[in-house]
Parts: sequence; structure tokens; C-alpha cells
Amino acid sequence: MESMYEKLMELPLFQGVSRDKLSELIEKTPFHFVKYNKGQQIVSANDNCTHIRFIISGDVRIDISSTNRRVAVSETLSGPDVIGADYLFGRNTFYPFNATALTECGILQIVKADFINILMSDKVFLFNMLNMLSRNSQKSTFGIMALSSGSIAERLAFIVTSLTQKGSKDIKIVYKQKDLCSILGVQRSSLIHALEKMNIDGVIDYTMTEIKVNSREALLEILHSED
Amino acid sequence: MESMYEKLMELPLFQGVSRDKLSELIEKTPFHFVKYNKGQQIVSANDNCTHIRFIISGDVRIDISSTNRRVAVSETLSGPDVIGADYLFGRNTFYPFNATALTECGILQIVKADFINILMSDKVFLFNMLNMLSRNSQKSTFGIMALSSGSIAERLAFIVTSLTQKGSKDIKIVYKQKDLCSILGVQRSSLIHALEKMNIDGVIDYTMTEIKVNSREALLEILHSED
Repeated sequence: MESMYEKLMELPLFQGVSRDKLSELIEKTPFHFVKYNKGQQIVSANDNCTHIRFIISGDVRIDISSTNRRVAVSETLSGPDVIGADYLFGRNTFYPFNATALTECGILQIVKADFINILMSDKVFLFNMLNMLSRNSQKSTFGIMALSSGSIAERLAFIVTSLTQKGSKDIKIVYKQKDLCSILGVQRSSLIHALEKMNIDGVIDYTMTEIKVNSREALLEILHSED
Repeated sequence: MESMYEKLMELPLFQGVSRDKLSELIEKTPFHFVKYNKGQQIVSANDNCTHIRFIISGDVRIDISSTNRRVAVSETLSGPDVIGADYLFGRNTFYPFNATALTECGILQIVKADFINILMSDKVFLFNMLNMLSRNSQKSTFGIMALSSGSIAERLAFIVTSLTQKGSKDIKIVYKQKDLCSILGVQRSSLIHALEKMNIDGVIDYTMTEIKVNSREALLEILHSED
């Protein structure tokens, strides 16, 4: 139980909450802990977002696909983390991605109505949620304001960092070359040239169907330093 | 007073609240009403976001500039509306834009700490805020997933809709041609060609230094229908 408290207090939306408050909460609120085996689907794209879901232990693979083209971006989140907190409210309350257990995973689920009561019970929870949503909402504005070179690397970095979250690992883009060229609005030869340059710079490894991002931070650097 | 209640109940973050709740709130919470004359600055870029600010009456011009290039996007918001609710929390709690009174304006300001108490006092307020932030945070994900043609029009539509808000009017892009070409990663001749096509389609009017968007909806259509 000791270590469970510690795990919970590390969750992005529970940080800074007091031990007493957390005990009180656990007594009052139904916390559902669900175990998923390696390979099991946790969330499917277009599932309704009826619960907030936290990764307590294990690794979860998230993958999101373009609506009209065969380009998919995937990333790994490790516990303690949260899955898709942006989709509980707003215009679309469904997940835009698949989430699959990459290892055995412990997931904490809280029904939306209970989570709202948690937010109203203590400012720490509310602040954490408002901060997370605002940070995500600000991301695109500041990302766009920083666009400057219009290079293919910059455009790719913008797309991939927008679709992935802070702290994620093993980012991969699986693509059909024709479709990635379309999305970026470039010729095949320019795409290859840009990927080759990013590879030499140590940012990515790539084949004709897959790009492996070595570090999300390096992509963010492309976004904020090119000029 | 009657009409003031009605105005307040139309504000994006106060919608759906009961008349009684609103009276109770007005008694308990300091609401500061500030008048701005035509041409007066309401908010400057990089000002700390210490209050939530609502437009009760009048028109406010918002303009936001690229960090490294001479490209600025501006829009008009009309009361009842809210100014920059995304910047009260999150990573950056400063406004990224200037806001100027385009006509005489009535602005309602509520100190952040009081606004948090409002959010905690009733689920309707909390829901409105969570919905607004989530909608803004989802916007870029769904916008990027919809990218498909990679055309200059699509790229411009993505940038401009990302930097402006729903319901805004008179969107204008003031640019140095060299800088807009850089941000979009295109040659001057391709830019002109794309602008000419958008002009024929009735989406924009343009000169060599300024693009006037005829309707934000038409830009959204470019984003979601091109393939």
C-alpha cells in the first residue's frame, strides 16, 4: 500500500497533493485498477472517453493516424503518466489514438463524474488539470510562432511534436512515401534529402517506410532554433 | 442591471449558469468593469496574465507576431467573448498577443485567485473552462491529422486558424513576402500563385504586404476538405 500511495502521488494530475488528502480521496472515490497483459488493447481510436486513465506501471504504446493518408505516429508512455487527458472534455470526447499495453500494465481508471468531484475537492487537483490542458493548448500557438525556416525538417518536427507528448519515448513514424510527401507538400527527392540530413545530424534513423526519432528533444530544438 | 446580467450570462465561461448563482457570485466576488476608449491598449504581448478578461461590449483587435519573422496575424473579437483564457495557467502565463480597443470597450476583469474560486463554486463554470481549454488543446491534433494535400493554401489555413479563435472576424495577415515564404518553405512565385488561386476561390483578398481573410470558415474548409 505504501508504494501505491507513492505511485499515485507521482501521477501528473495528483502531484503536490497531501498524503491525507489522497487517503481521504481513496476512501470516497471508486478507483478502478485494471491489469492489462502485454499486447492487450487499452483504448481504441474513436472510443468514447468516459474515464480518466492513468498508467500506474508498465509501458503503453500510443499510435495516431492521419485521417486521409497512410502516415501514423506512435510513441511509448511509461507509468506514472496519464492517457489522453485532453479528450475528457471539449469538442471531441473520444480518443483519437489506439493505446496498447507494451508490457504488463497497471491502469487506474476513474469515471469522469468522479474525476470532476476530485477536481472540485481540492485546488491542487484543479490546478494540475488546468495547467496540463493550458500547456497543451498553448503548445501549437508557440510552436507556430516559432516557425521560421519552413524547411522540411522543421515541418516534420512540428507535426511529430504536436502529435506526441512530453516525456514520451521511441517515437516512430510509419509512412507510405507518397502520403508523407503529400502531407508535407514536397517532392520525393526533397524528402529523402531532408531525412538524410536529419539522420546525419543524429536526430532520426529511417527507411523507406519508417522513421525512428532518436529524441523528441532534438525535434523540439529544430523547431526553436532554426532561422 | 437587467441587461448586465444577460450580458454576463452570454459570456463563454458563464453560459448555462443560473440567474441565482450569478447574483450570488456578483455579491461575493470582486468584478472589475473597465472602460477602454477606441485605440487604447488592453493587453500587451508578454504582459503577465494575472486576470481573466471578458469583453462585455465593443470590439477588440488581437494581433500576434511570429518570433523570428515579420509575419503578424490579427483578428477582431466582439463582446461577449473572452480574451486569452488559455494563458491563465500552463507553461506560459503571459499573453502572446496585443489586444487593442477597436471601439469603446467594456472589459470585465476578475483576478485569477477569484476566478479559481468561481470554478470551484459550481460545476457549470468548471465545465465551461475545461471544455474551452480542451477544445483548444484538441484543435492542433485534429488539424494536423486532417493535413493531406500539403498545399500552400492548406499550410496557410492551418497556421491562420491555429492562431485565431472561433467566431473572430476581419482576420488579416500582414507580412514581409520574404518572411512568409520562409515560414511556408516556398518560392515567391509559388506563394503568389497560391494566393491568386485562393483569391479566385473567394477565400482571401491580398496585396504584396497584406492578406485579408474573407471568412475563417472557408479556411477551415480548406483544412478539412482538401485531398
